Amino acid sequence: MVGMAVLGCGRIGRLHARNFARHARARLVAVFDVSAAAAQQVAAELGTKSARSLDAVWSDRNITAVLIATPTDTHVPLITQAVKAGKAVLCEKPIDVDLERARNCWSDIASDHPTVMIGFNRRFDPSYRRLRERLEAGEIGRLELAVITSRDPAPPPVGYLKGSGGLFRDMTIHDFDMARYLAGEITQVHALGANLVDPEVGKLGDVDTCAISLRARSGALLQINNSRRSVYGYDQRLEAFGSAGMLQAGNRRATSVESWNGERTAAREVVLHSFIERYGQAYEAEVDAFVRSVEEGRPMSPDFSDGLEALRLAVAAEESLRTGAVVNLS
Amino acid sequence: MVGMAVLGCGRIGRLHARNFARHARARLVAVFDVSAAAAQQVAAELGTKSARSLDAVWSDRNITAVLIATPTDTHVPLITQAVKAGKAVLCEKPIDVDLERARNCWSDIASDHPTVMIGFNRRFDPSYRRLRERLEAGEIGRLELAVITSRDPAPPPVGYLKGSGGLFRDMTIHDFDMARYLAGEITQVHALGANLVDPEVGKLGDVDTCAISLRARSGALLQINNSRRSVYGYDQRLEAFGSAGMLQAGNRRATSVESWNGERTAAREVVLHSFIERYGQAYEAEVDAFVRSVEEGRPMSPDFSDGLEALRLAVAAEESLRTGAVVNLS
Amino acid sequence: MVGMAVLGCGRIGRLHARNFARHARARLVAVFDVSAAAAQQVAAELGTKSARSLDAVWSDRNITAVLIATPTDTHVPLITQAVKAGKAVLCEKPIDVDLERARNCWSDIASDHPTVMIGFNRRFDPSYRRLRERLEAGEIGRLELAVITSRDPAPPPVGYLKGSGGLFRDMTIHDFDMARYLAGEITQVHALGANLVDPEVGKLGDVDTCAISLRARSGALLQINNSRRSVYGYDQRLEAFGSAGMLQAGNRRATSVESWNGERTAAREVVLHSFIERYGQAYEAEVDAFVRSVEEGRPMSPDFSDGLEALRLAVAAEESLRTGAVVNLS
Amino acid sequence: MVGMAVLGCGRIGRLHARNFARHARARLVAVFDVSAAAAQQVAAELGTKSARSLDAVWSDRNITAVLIATPTDTHVPLITQAVKAGKAVLCEKPIDVDLERARNCWSDIASDHPTVMIGFNRRFDPSYRRLRERLEAGEIGRLELAVITSRDPAPPPVGYLKGSGGLFRDMTIHDFDMARYLAGEITQVHALGANLVDPEVGKLGDVDTCAISLRARSGALLQINNSRRSVYGYDQRLEAFGSAGMLQAGNRRATSVESWNGERTAAREVVLHSFIERYGQAYEAEVDAFVRSVEEGRPMSPDFSDGLEALRLAVAAEESLRTGAVVNLS
Repeated sequence: MVGMAVLGCGRIGRLHARNFARHARARLVAVFDVSAAAAQQVAAELGTKSARSLDAVWSDRNITAVLIATPTDTHVPLITQAVKAGKAVLCEKPIDVDLERARNCWSDIASDHPTVMIGFNRRFDPSYRRLRERLEAGEIGRLELAVITSRDPAPPPVGYLKGSGGLFRDMTIHDFDMARYLAGEITQVHALGANLVDPEVGKLGDVDTCAISLRARSGALLQINNSRRSVYGYDQRLEAFGSAGMLQAGNRRATSVESWNGERTAAREVVLHSFIERYGQAYEAEVDAFVRSVEEGRPMSPDFSDGLEALRLAVAAEESLRTGAVVNLS
Repeated sequence: MVGMAVLGCGRIGRLHARNFARHARARLVAVFDVSAAAAQQVAAELGTKSARSLDAVWSDRNITAVLIATPTDTHVPLITQAVKAGKAVLCEKPIDVDLERARNCWSDIASDHPTVMIGFNRRFDPSYRRLRERLEAGEIGRLELAVITSRDPAPPPVGYLKGSGGLFRDMTIHDFDMARYLAGEITQVHALGANLVDPEVGKLGDVDTCAISLRARSGALLQINNSRRSVYGYDQRLEAFGSAGMLQAGNRRATSVESWNGERTAAREVVLHSFIERYGQAYEAEVDAFVRSVEEGRPMSPDFSDGLEALRLAVAAEESLRTGAVVNLS
Repeated sequence: MVGMAVLGCGRIGRLHARNFARHARARLVAVFDVSAAAAQQVAAELGTKSARSLDAVWSDRNITAVLIATPTDTHVPLITQAVKAGKAVLCEKPIDVDLERARNCWSDIASDHPTVMIGFNRRFDPSYRRLRERLEAGEIGRLELAVITSRDPAPPPVGYLKGSGGLFRDMTIHDFDMARYLAGEITQVHALGANLVDPEVGKLGDVDTCAISLRARSGALLQINNSRRSVYGYDQRLEAFGSAGMLQAGNRRATSVESWNGERTAAREVVLHSFIERYGQAYEAEVDAFVRSVEEGRPMSPDFSDGLEALRLAVAAEESLRTGAVVNLS
Repeated sequence: MVGMAVLGCGRIGRLHARNFARHARARLVAVFDVSAAAAQQVAAELGTKSARSLDAVWSDRNITAVLIATPTDTHVPLITQAVKAGKAVLCEKPIDVDLERARNCWSDIASDHPTVMIGFNRRFDPSYRRLRERLEAGEIGRLELAVITSRDPAPPPVGYLKGSGGLFRDMTIHDFDMARYLAGEITQVHALGANLVDPEVGKLGDVDTCAISLRARSGALLQINNSRRSVYGYDQRLEAFGSAGMLQAGNRRATSVESWNGERTAAREVVLHSFIERYGQAYEAEVDAFVRSVEEGRPMSPDFSDGLEALRLAVAAEESLRTGAVVNLS
């Protein structure tokens, strides 16, 4: 049994807490939030305790590992403290919005044999996972092109956007990780961006729509397109094209109902709007993979360096957006 | 080159005439219609002549074969005359609405080595044909169940219905032929029918909706469902289920466009409404198969007996409708 | 909170026990099985107690309701005892394989104001449920035709088949309930059956493949087709066709991956094989509906009479199979 | 009736010649090829004459318009001579591989009131056309993102590649035109390219795989991806995403058959391999639009400037490929 503490009792923290609470080989020892009330509510719901302080978490010998789902700017100190306290860590993406700060975090903890997983939930989506397994098994030969489509149902509130680090570090970072998941190391990044959805985004100097091209060391070319608003739901698709075929993984809907009438045929429902639903199975599988790695002392995947690399691609995309030129990564 | 005459210049006659006119190995020698004006119009359009009389057709040595697309009650005398005149025949379904009369027709011509194809156009639909080839090739093992869906876009005018012979001889006859095309000889027929679409149909003692069960000598069970009205277009589907899998063949649309919005996703257009469009490729392939069989002196398929068998199933279905009991065919 | 006991700790009993154990408004008070070891194992897993005897269940005032997942021939006595003990009941289908016995059960308990739900799980499948809601809302006008496809991945062992009551009472009973769910009261039943899958089934005098036609009092015609073996998984589909359109609900797969290569395109995975997976969401929703009805004292749906009616249709189908004639239900 | 001459009797010339020959309002007056034998063969097949020389075409008063399907390097002189001779022109794409030469061609003919259509066949594909009509009608609001997928079944022979002008001028030029068809004027181009399919392509200094990003003056971002080899057929897709939804148009197959077995389900056939089949309807519609514009004296679309613009985008993409930077078009 892996003794867990969940730090941060917001929407995503609660989701993880529930998954740990019902996991067969994990025990939810404590939850923590700067709002004691929030933590107590979750603790009550899940029959666990609410930690009085972070120090109480670090010193609790029943706690083997922590899940960090606090605001982004606390990730670095919490990872550092957790590692120093000998805890394994599952930290929500991104490590930080600042690449230098994230790198320094690694410098600080590297000698402590850190066991850190970064929560790139999509790697655990059953469809994406299956697609990649079949790709790795050689089903479509060598990967030559990939198209990653990722469109949020609606832009987040302006308040969130201000601290988000911008489209690339906040949203596209998932797609950068997907690109690496499919194609390995990325050597070139080019980005076009636009402010088409919400003028408030533009006022923040940010974009809400983008078209990104990547080149992988393997030779493969990849395209990412993002929008902060998709009226038909949370549009999440992968297409991998290779010398011997193509694999696609698509959207999910609540039901399989199709309707036919005098206007249209075979019409499906809108796709799931919420990432909670869309990636519900992924979150469960992520927690399971983390628990298993902790139990078996195996390396984490995705690990800290995956978190750094995705952030590095986001930073490179920003540079490309400014200069118009492709950015070469060595 | 096969010299052709087309008898009957209505909608379906004109369609066939055009297909013969542009066929590489056929020559449209003449067209005929009881309305000389109708015949002359088609002749002018296609650069052929309008025959003055049927006798002129029978005696024309340039005419090797005739296509009969006249009203159903003329099929039997025209088939007989054509065969007696030594012409090959492609006759639109049904041979006749009266099974006895159709059988007598055969008795009259059997000794003349008749070369007769009955125009069950669906046997020539590329999708149905491919499905059957793959079935015959053993792809799904032994056929165990089949579902034949056939729904007209809208009921024909009452005037037509009166002389149509009823739903089973007019419309379901195609599905009975499809059943035989897929499963071979049919040994049992059961039919439920209802008048749900148009009260006028009921006044004629006819049904416009049906659910039919068949058993084939091979052991396979088949289901047919029909409606005289489908608001989303001409719904034409086959499903063949066997010990090793399933094959389906579906509808056709004018374009491949799909639409996604806040109400629905992946919505396709309505399916083609007109049998002329839906089975356009089938009509061309039918004419081509006929020409080839005439040229090569090969047996026709579907032939006169296929026309008789489909009619026999329609008659059996009517009996089942009256009695409620399954009808055994020996 | 609804205090629950689960009777029968086989595969389906355990599934339900887990669903009750994690239900927010239910408490799993006890589990029972004739094998004390089986019960103790489930009790240990779910942190509940294993009841020593049925009497201990009936007399336990913390137990408000019971789930009956024992062998079919015990359903009637257990329902009766549970009702007499004042418990609400959720009983797996069928009530009994014998219609007379099931009716007598009702006579025995009717005066006790029984609260009984029969476990027709498919009524709680999100896709079927949505289809029916949209049908009820008038989206496709009046229901005219329905096609219910239901094919098991593989025939059960011969041992099971012997006590199963035959294809219609064991498997098709779900489809009879679906027919009633969609179209209401059924007035005519006709059945064709065949033994195509496994000769052992034929030796038992049973069939493993069938084609059934139904007429509803509403006028609608329905078709059911069943097979005991579908190599591509558990094939479960509904099609409802009406005056203004069509609704379909289809199969489920583990992932959304599609593959394209030189042989085929857009190929999906096989559909889920296990009813546990296919109807996993349905089982959860069923338990939830039951708990809510108990809590709120509302009538159950599907209730005892729905169980009787489905069984009556199965018996009628058997009669039709013997006689070849349609069976009229008054 | 529009009197037509077809110049060039290769594969595509013959295709057009047949379409003109059977067009109701066109008359195929002559065909021409530098190989008199090739021209005579087509003339014989279609019942027209083979012109002895180009001068004979220019001076023939029965010839109103010409279709140019000769090798690319003859397009400019033939367009010029045809316009000077007062003929309307339908010229296969591209105008020329050299942008300067194409522009000079326009300078030479501009004062002659030229009537020139450039053969961007995809604009006439029924699915693409319908998609654009619905886009223009506002169905998905403002266009924000588009993805254009275009993958040839197999690379052309090296001999062809040498004179092709490279991937962007030869193949992507169609996609550049599609981008303009959907989004209007393009202001920025960025291209990544790779040589993944055939080493011979790389030896020619060309690429066979690309990922291109475009920005339109309207604000929309577009992505194009190309490959010279797609094992599952000629992959041709459009996706247009906007503020109110998405429209997609997809591939075509010879039949609608789907297969289900123990390995996979709902598998379709490979998509059509040949552009002749894939765009067969488009070629017919193109010829029809040309004939109608000639008859009615209406402006051509796509016209000479559309040909120039697509070429300009191809040249810009090449520059981007060299420099890595986005190319701004004024």
